[in-house]
Amino acid sequence: MKIALAQLNFFVGDFDGNVSKMLAAVGEAKAQGADLVVFPELSTCGYPPRDFLEFDDFIRRSERAVLKLAEAAQGIAIAVGSPSRNPVVEGKDLYNSAYFLEDGKVKHVQHKALLPTYDVFDEYRYFEPAKEFKVVEFKGKRIALSICEDAWNVGNENPLYTVVPTDEMMPQRPDFILNLSASPFNYGHAKDRIQVLQANVRRYGIPLFYANHVGSQTEIIFDGGSLAVSPSGEVFEELPYWVECVKTFDLEEVVRGGRHVEQSKEKVALIHDALLLGIRDYFKKLGFKQAILGLSGGIDSAVVAVLAARALGEDNVRVLLMPSQFSSDHSVNDARQLAVNLGIQYDIVPIEPIFERYEETLRPHFIGTPNNVTEENIQARIRGMLLMAMSNKFGNVLLNTTNKSEMAVGYGTLYGDLCGGLSVLADVYKTEVYELAHYINKDGIVIPENSITKPPSAELRPGQKDSDSLPEYDVLDAILFQYIEKRQGPHEIIRMGFDEATVRRALRLVNMSEFKRHQSAPVLRVSPKAFGVGRRLPIVGKYLS
Amino acid sequence: MKIALAQLNFFVGDFDGNVSKMLAAVGEAKAQGADLVVFPELSTCGYPPRDFLEFDDFIRRSERAVLKLAEAAQGIAIAVGSPSRNPVVEGKDLYNSAYFLEDGKVKHVQHKALLPTYDVFDEYRYFEPAKEFKVVEFKGKRIALSICEDAWNVGNENPLYTVVPTDEMMPQRPDFILNLSASPFNYGHAKDRIQVLQANVRRYGIPLFYANHVGSQTEIIFDGGSLAVSPSGEVFEELPYWVECVKTFDLEEVVRGGRHVEQSKEKVALIHDALLLGIRDYFKKLGFKQAILGLSGGIDSAVVAVLAARALGEDNVRVLLMPSQFSSDHSVNDARQLAVNLGIQYDIVPIEPIFERYEETLRPHFIGTPNNVTEENIQARIRGMLLMAMSNKFGNVLLNTTNKSEMAVGYGTLYGDLCGGLSVLADVYKTEVYELAHYINKDGIVIPENSITKPPSAELRPGQKDSDSLPEYDVLDAILFQYIEKRQGPHEIIRMGFDEATVRRALRLVNMSEFKRHQSAPVLRVSPKAFGVGRRLPIVGKYLS
Repeated sequence: MKIALAQLNFFVGDFDGNVSKMLAAVGEAKAQGADLVVFPELSTCGYPPRDFLEFDDFIRRSERAVLKLAEAAQGIAIAVGSPSRNPVVEGKDLYNSAYFLEDGKVKHVQHKALLPTYDVFDEYRYFEPAKEFKVVEFKGKRIALSICEDAWNVGNENPLYTVVPTDEMMPQRPDFILNLSASPFNYGHAKDRIQVLQANVRRYGIPLFYANHVGSQTEIIFDGGSLAVSPSGEVFEELPYWVECVKTFDLEEVVRGGRHVEQSKEKVALIHDALLLGIRDYFKKLGFKQAILGLSGGIDSAVVAVLAARALGEDNVRVLLMPSQFSSDHSVNDARQLAVNLGIQYDIVPIEPIFERYEETLRPHFIGTPNNVTEENIQARIRGMLLMAMSNKFGNVLLNTTNKSEMAVGYGTLYGDLCGGLSVLADVYKTEVYELAHYINKDGIVIPENSITKPPSAELRPGQKDSDSLPEYDVLDAILFQYIEKRQGPHEIIRMGFDEATVRRALRLVNMSEFKRHQSAPVLRVSPKAFGVGRRLPIVGKYLS
Repeated sequence: MKIALAQLNFFVGDFDGNVSKMLAAVGEAKAQGADLVVFPELSTCGYPPRDFLEFDDFIRRSERAVLKLAEAAQGIAIAVGSPSRNPVVEGKDLYNSAYFLEDGKVKHVQHKALLPTYDVFDEYRYFEPAKEFKVVEFKGKRIALSICEDAWNVGNENPLYTVVPTDEMMPQRPDFILNLSASPFNYGHAKDRIQVLQANVRRYGIPLFYANHVGSQTEIIFDGGSLAVSPSGEVFEELPYWVECVKTFDLEEVVRGGRHVEQSKEKVALIHDALLLGIRDYFKKLGFKQAILGLSGGIDSAVVAVLAARALGEDNVRVLLMPSQFSSDHSVNDARQLAVNLGIQYDIVPIEPIFERYEETLRPHFIGTPNNVTEENIQARIRGMLLMAMSNKFGNVLLNTTNKSEMAVGYGTLYGDLCGGLSVLADVYKTEVYELAHYINKDGIVIPENSITKPPSAELRPGQKDSDSLPEYDVLDAILFQYIEKRQGPHEIIRMGFDEATVRRALRLVNMSEFKRHQSAPVLRVSPKAFGVGRRLPIVGKYLS
């Protein structure tokens, strides 16, 4: 039997587009001689559909998409993920289902049992968990259908669920497992995913075929990396990341094993490529072509400019250099040099004249008050406004250049440098931004060396350096990683050897700046714990603050 | 037996504060002769604790809070909600639990079975559902402990869960039910809540005591309205809204019934009072005293100014009037008159000089382009920046004045009039803002009549009216209500008799402006479906857009 994995880039809510893509893939799978083609979880409606699932109209469209695919299931069977209705009045109204389509009809539907409701996931918000588990027979083989998380309750020390769906199917002696997934990327996820699938295969002694989404949906990036795993536990083949593909496997060959194709998992390269896809899909799916951003001469905006030029083409990126009285000459020179290196349009727009007018306007109201962060914020906000004015006038999307360290501690001005339609680096710690910069420069200088080597500064007052008000980034990032990614509390982090006052201050800054993150642009997620939909904290709270 | 309901205003993460409040209430209940005092759901840590629950440190502090309360359970028993750990490795690590404390010890723990994971709720994100149900015996009575949603699976046509927890307890013949709740306010909720509790009481034929939170946590407002319900189904007493109270009931009296105390449920009054509490708690819990906002002379900012002055005191509210060349004289006059009526500080800051400087600065980059929304946005953003500058300089919080109709269709400028720390009206449709204005003026003119009667306008270009670009608000709001609150799709709404083109355009505007809502201030929730944490939609999507 020949099984095709179809790793496609879907678009949430675009039923027509998603179905045509799948119909083309059915054709390709047939041409490859496949008996069966496997699409990922919730392919018809895209993932994550979120509260669109609460609309009956949306579910009807999903159902019509499944029926269209069923019509195409002639001479080939199709496994596809789509929502289905729960006919029982008790419980949620929907299931997250795998449809098995054969001979123009729906032959079997297996619902998802394990509904992830952590981090970016909200599945129990919409779906009833499956309580029945049945294999489907096809051409003399028994197939265990499972959906993403269904495979994730084995091979970990602290299982989140009390059921293991595939265990329930084992008495029916399946020949292989199909896992339909929507498993979001983070820089460690491909490794985790392979380990979990290997644990499954070793537990059951049968091969597993895993079809994943590729593409980005607002902040959530899917890397692809679909898999055929041999019963020995060996990865038979891992499909490429970041690209759509349809690839057919011979079941017997996968059972035999002895082949091993795996993708490189170098962290910095993964982040780089993920961000390119995240930028590209955000623009393509929103129907925009051009980006704008502010270049400060610093490393963050330099990295974003390079990523944008690589993702969208240098003709589709323009930058503003917006020096103030506190900007050093080298900042403007470094920014200009980068623009020249990239071949992107740049304009220099000094902010001092506007700043002076704000000062004049506010002077009567500020009488008797000392200069403070207010004046720094005004400068940052003038820059944000100029960028937004260009964005509004020319229809390009403002890219935000804040990094994760700044976003964590609230080192940024709301409505100023926190402006933007998409935040490219806010899940990349400052120390990782340096890694990205070196990676970008690996085959020759793109980002001027000076932008990388000089001490970070917001240049909002004379001689200002980030390290005046923040711990050095290597220390800060290590503390933030423990708190944000690892959910360690102050005692645990201090016990690791970090200075107590620094830890308490860092955690306090994180908790006190939730209000800024709440109003920030969506953040491309590349880590296991990004700011945004996957991290939900009170704005008004009194914990470590 | 005498049972005290303690309806208190907790603060998320403030364990010390929450415990002292509860200890004081224990004292008060004792003074009232109570045998048992009942606190709401998750009282120790406050509700909703969100991802703080993922921190072991946070759970340890909750546990310590329970032990402190247990020490106080001498001569009185205490029922209190707090997280507890799931000792079984499979499943989530926590339960949402009701502790029964007696004689200085934890006598019994009943976990919550029904974990709401819709709208603003995320409980299955953290908690394992209870599978065991045991009554607790106290002074010869058997008590069924239930937690909030546990009571909500009866009395509705489409139950969300397959279990009814109190049904499971009935073989143990409980004498009464205690329900520990954290049930957020909306203008229809008190009625729903009473109906659901009545359905419970009628189903089991025993009295029910219901303790709810009062107070606001960022965007979620709790009204209180704790209840004693007689076995006949009659509301014996509904405690007041918006205030803390401890009230003791005699079980035999509640069983006998014949008493009926209920609070007024007039919609506009409820919304008015809820917004006052929402503003007051936001400031108090964040540690701020003073608010600032822009007064345009229109109805929205007028209503917010009144609410702020009533919530914080007139000395704690200041306003800016920021006329442009397009502002009409009456706008400035109406705004000034309101400030005078309220006795709040106002300053007039014309924006034209700054606007001109922006135009000069951008002129070389805008050559050959026509004036468009860009220039309107610049004006709105100058106002936002001036307000933020005052906010930064004087440490007051900017209140946002956008209403729900504007927020829905994206009629507002990001980083301009969408600025603010808290959005007061973004869950109040424009037609409801009028109701609020009339309610405010019911005992005499506070808001100038002219602000209420003139046609709504953003005054960003000559003669501009909202109705130039939007349907009339009575039509628009009716369509939005069906789409947002009722989750009706285009076909259903058109079938109700609305013009097809208007419906399609309105829904498209809603879906296209998700990016603006994503970056907006937290919205005080007063309706069954508010923008923010309870409504989760993709920014990049292709559905009805």
